[in-house]
Amino acid sequence: MLSTIDHIGIAVEDIDSAVSMYRDALKLELVHRETITEQGVEAVLFDVGDGHVELLRPLGPETAVGKFLSRRGPGIHHIAYRVDDVEAAIGELAAAGLRLIDERPRRGIRNSRVAFLHPASTGGVLTEIVQPAAEAH
Amino acid sequence: MLSTIDHIGIAVEDIDSAVSMYRDALKLELVHRETITEQGVEAVLFDVGDGHVELLRPLGPETAVGKFLSRRGPGIHHIAYRVDDVEAAIGELAAAGLRLIDERPRRGIRNSRVAFLHPASTGGVLTEIVQPAAEAH
Repeated sequence: MLSTIDHIGIAVEDIDSAVSMYRDALKLELVHRETITEQGVEAVLFDVGDGHVELLRPLGPETAVGKFLSRRGPGIHHIAYRVDDVEAAIGELAAAGLRLIDERPRRGIRNSRVAFLHPASTGGVLTEIVQPAAEAH
Repeated sequence: MLSTIDHIGIAVEDIDSAVSMYRDALKLELVHRETITEQGVEAVLFDVGDGHVELLRPLGPETAVGKFLSRRGPGIHHIAYRVDDVEAAIGELAAAGLRLIDERPRRGIRNSRVAFLHPASTGGVLTEIVQPAAEAH
């Protein structure tokens, strides 16, 4: 069901210094930048192998990532696993007893289709599943 | 330098229930279990694609993961990137101005050679580099 680690989402306070660190010090390639209003973030993607690092800057303090930052400070926000069929995966995960934040997929970065599991049923780990758009992952 | 996301380290309070969740609900394959006394953890590895989820149970409250748990509760503890040559990577990262916890590699799980970067220079993200042993990654 979960084919690989698609990305790690990282909450940042200063996106410019974070971009510099991932690009200039860790030498990762910046491949995409997008404001996802529905999720309240500006996101910057770096390639690493077949997966990605996703930097997340909240669009405001009342967004999910804004609240995370004020509660915990900058750091790893979520892990996302890649799936072939997000609806099928949602069904399997619900059948296995996991609590879903999204019972239906919503739009993610680069027109992916995503759903989040509630950290209360995944040991405190905010967990996302992502079905990439056909043209990219 | 960083070839892929090798694994995500997850701090857990109850390793048995965490193992059940990753095996039975997320349907990942448990591939390895090891007590790493030097790091103060019992670790359980699950395959996901070419990478891994690494569950970490602290061997005591004064270990690094024990302190993390008492400060932040269970959740994502670190991200590890795979490298071909851990010594060369340490040199490149230090030259780029990053602060290292380990200036020389130490032994990680499955005889890998690892080094940690200090989260103070990586935006609050505890970051590991790992050179797998020749026989496995």
